[in-house]
Amino acid sequence: MSKIVEPKILSGFMELLPAQQIIIERIKKIIQNNFEHFGFTPLDTPVIELSEVLLAKAGGETEKQIYQFQKGDNDLSLRFDLTVPLARYVAMHQNELTFPFKRYQIGKVYRGERPQKGRFREFYQCDIDIIGREKLNILNDAELPCVIYNIFTQIGLKDFTISINNRKILKGFFESLGLASKSSDILRITDKIAKIGQKNVTESLIEIGISSKEIEAILNFITTTGQNNEVLKTLSRMDITNDDFVQGILEIKEVLRGLNQLGVPEEFYKLDLSISRGLDYYTGTIYETTLNKYPQFGSICSGGRYDNLASFYTTTKLPGVGISIGLTRLFDQFCSAGFIKGYVQTPSCILILPMSIQEQEMAFSFSAQLREKNVNVEVFIEDIKFPKKMTYANKIGVPMIAIIGENERNSGTIVIKDMVTAEQKVLPIDQAVKFVVQSAKQEKVLFPVQMPL
Amino acid sequence: MSKIVEPKILSGFMELLPAQQIIIERIKKIIQNNFEHFGFTPLDTPVIELSEVLLAKAGGETEKQIYQFQKGDNDLSLRFDLTVPLARYVAMHQNELTFPFKRYQIGKVYRGERPQKGRFREFYQCDIDIIGREKLNILNDAELPCVIYNIFTQIGLKDFTISINNRKILKGFFESLGLASKSSDILRITDKIAKIGQKNVTESLIEIGISSKEIEAILNFITTTGQNNEVLKTLSRMDITNDDFVQGILEIKEVLRGLNQLGVPEEFYKLDLSISRGLDYYTGTIYETTLNKYPQFGSICSGGRYDNLASFYTTTKLPGVGISIGLTRLFDQFCSAGFIKGYVQTPSCILILPMSIQEQEMAFSFSAQLREKNVNVEVFIEDIKFPKKMTYANKIGVPMIAIIGENERNSGTIVIKDMVTAEQKVLPIDQAVKFVVQSAKQEKVLFPVQMPL
Repeated sequence: MSKIVEPKILSGFMELLPAQQIIIERIKKIIQNNFEHFGFTPLDTPVIELSEVLLAKAGGETEKQIYQFQKGDNDLSLRFDLTVPLARYVAMHQNELTFPFKRYQIGKVYRGERPQKGRFREFYQCDIDIIGREKLNILNDAELPCVIYNIFTQIGLKDFTISINNRKILKGFFESLGLASKSSDILRITDKIAKIGQKNVTESLIEIGISSKEIEAILNFITTTGQNNEVLKTLSRMDITNDDFVQGILEIKEVLRGLNQLGVPEEFYKLDLSISRGLDYYTGTIYETTLNKYPQFGSICSGGRYDNLASFYTTTKLPGVGISIGLTRLFDQFCSAGFIKGYVQTPSCILILPMSIQEQEMAFSFSAQLREKNVNVEVFIEDIKFPKKMTYANKIGVPMIAIIGENERNSGTIVIKDMVTAEQKVLPIDQAVKFVVQSAKQEKVLFPVQMPL
Repeated sequence: MSKIVEPKILSGFMELLPAQQIIIERIKKIIQNNFEHFGFTPLDTPVIELSEVLLAKAGGETEKQIYQFQKGDNDLSLRFDLTVPLARYVAMHQNELTFPFKRYQIGKVYRGERPQKGRFREFYQCDIDIIGREKLNILNDAELPCVIYNIFTQIGLKDFTISINNRKILKGFFESLGLASKSSDILRITDKIAKIGQKNVTESLIEIGISSKEIEAILNFITTTGQNNEVLKTLSRMDITNDDFVQGILEIKEVLRGLNQLGVPEEFYKLDLSISRGLDYYTGTIYETTLNKYPQFGSICSGGRYDNLASFYTTTKLPGVGISIGLTRLFDQFCSAGFIKGYVQTPSCILILPMSIQEQEMAFSFSAQLREKNVNVEVFIEDIKFPKKMTYANKIGVPMIAIIGENERNSGTIVIKDMVTAEQKVLPIDQAVKFVVQSAKQEKVLFPVQMPL
């Protein structure tokens, strides 16, 4: 016997047991289905890229976190997001792609952060972006929150708000106060208002030399509340003629109109002047999404509009709009909050238990008939005592079992038992097939995420 | 403007344009669906592992190919297959898992091979394994080829053979010739017979000191042909009493019986004494799969039975059986052979084209109604001239379009056009919804892989 190495994984890497894995896969499938429902096309870029290409733009904090290494003559890096590879891909294939290019990508990305609760070094991002060549209509910015609304309601989230703002409005407003040169700094500070509060924001603004009158105006502005059309009215009444400000309001009106036309209920989205996203990258619409009763989750889905996706790789102007779900972290938050109640360890709707090896043939044949009807089926194959087979059925949490013993074999019937209600019935094979197919369809599909009311 | 970096990727990494990406995704979905149809539960292990854990067993060629690097204090490696992580996972969680443990994993693995045609440094493996604790019934070995049969027929492969053998038969036979000590070497040589031919095999066997009489016996044995039951009869008539030989025959009989009971047509599987798989790892059943008219593809799906999955990580005996599809390489072979005829660049069944911005609202509302019925829909949003919108529709290869102009807006109708037949009809909205839902269902689902007859 060779020496035993302790089996373990690195900290900061998520690895789930089957009951939870099944649930995150269901969430992933809902995300993917919705991306495709809106016509986004799949993309799959390499995890490893040439460092000189991947890091063309990076710097500062990001660069420190990169998994970077040599292999042969190559300096390689693992991707740290899906946006830079998208920029590289679109620049590289711009003559082969059709624009607007709507793509989704669901994949793992890598950041060597110091491990801490809720932070992962390997995590899934689920991204959609719409990229135009030279220009891209503002109504695209309405489609993305609609996709997110569909995903979040289908996975079982309730009571969430997609907050929408436009950088141009903020920029224009600061310019109207004569603070154009400090616009980026102000945005970085006010962006934290939900986290650090008005008092700390005020102090930070004082530090960068904003007067108390200006601070009052800024705070008044970003904390404007009310129905979307009320906020819009307030903005119009301000009589600011700055181009960016006016353009930003036009844009946000279009986005809100589009969301309405797409049928997203108004309680799920909100014009919120306080959000600004840290990244300099965004130039127009910005999104953040929060669970109303769980502000501690922070933004669970963010994104925005950018003027130029790939200026590091091409001189072609590629404006776009994108939004991203950080699935690994979000799932971890769901688990911590008790929203994930997984105990089912199998994708099977039914487990077939032959009493003895004599009934194996009937079990296999029954399983083949069910699979032909698209039912997920497992046949128990091990030759062990029946009570142990039942133990297995209970452990994996399968919703139905089929029992085939000597009686059933002789009479061509099958015992079907509902493992939740414990109801059971004996049916001839053909009827058993119909019954299981029907039950599998009707099986109350619980939301993967179980938020309390 | 910052300096432009040439956008490129590393050689040996597959990155597809949308039309092909859509097809490989369809294949992946068929693989995943079938894995779940048979009750395999999903697993997702990290791409990065601790080198000391991942490489506990590796050595020689494999170790040279590893992407290995330092990050902080850790010596890290990218996984080079999905079997070692499975072994590590099962050993680590053996008290939390339910046995037999049936898992599937579809994920990327990394091997820094010298790039050459058909070899990839990053590639998808699609694995299923069934792991027992202490023991695992031989009938499990019948289930895996049944899964593969279902997958390959559903993706459009025809005329393929799953060859099945059992290492115990080969080992027993060599022992009966008094060649027990050379058994591994002989297996390694005879395994290549399909590639290098009888003459080269003979020469190699001479080199390791096998007599010409023994070589004749070996070649006769491994080239035994005929129907499965004929081959079994031939084996019985040989009157070899070696334990392994006898046990191997019992096992293969069970596997063939199980395949029959599971309803796999006999023309798709074959007892083939010439296959032996290179790896020492396998101890019983072994599988290889070939396309009958394309022997140059080599084995497109292989696997087998092993006695002990995780001896490097635990003293618990974990026998298992597994099979694997190397999707990236296989897809590349399909492309080279002309089996992939992708020109559709969207997952959408229909593209809605509003003639002008006035019809945008109706387009959005129609799209929402279709999505509610589970149809993949794209709305064309850019405000450009209509002929350019049609150009877009043609380029992305969408099967249907809906046109909404002033007439339609005024009369509450929609023009639906089939892009393949060019047929078009004008329908009131509710009927248009029904028609599109129906067409999307009936849309002749072409196999993703189009093999010539």
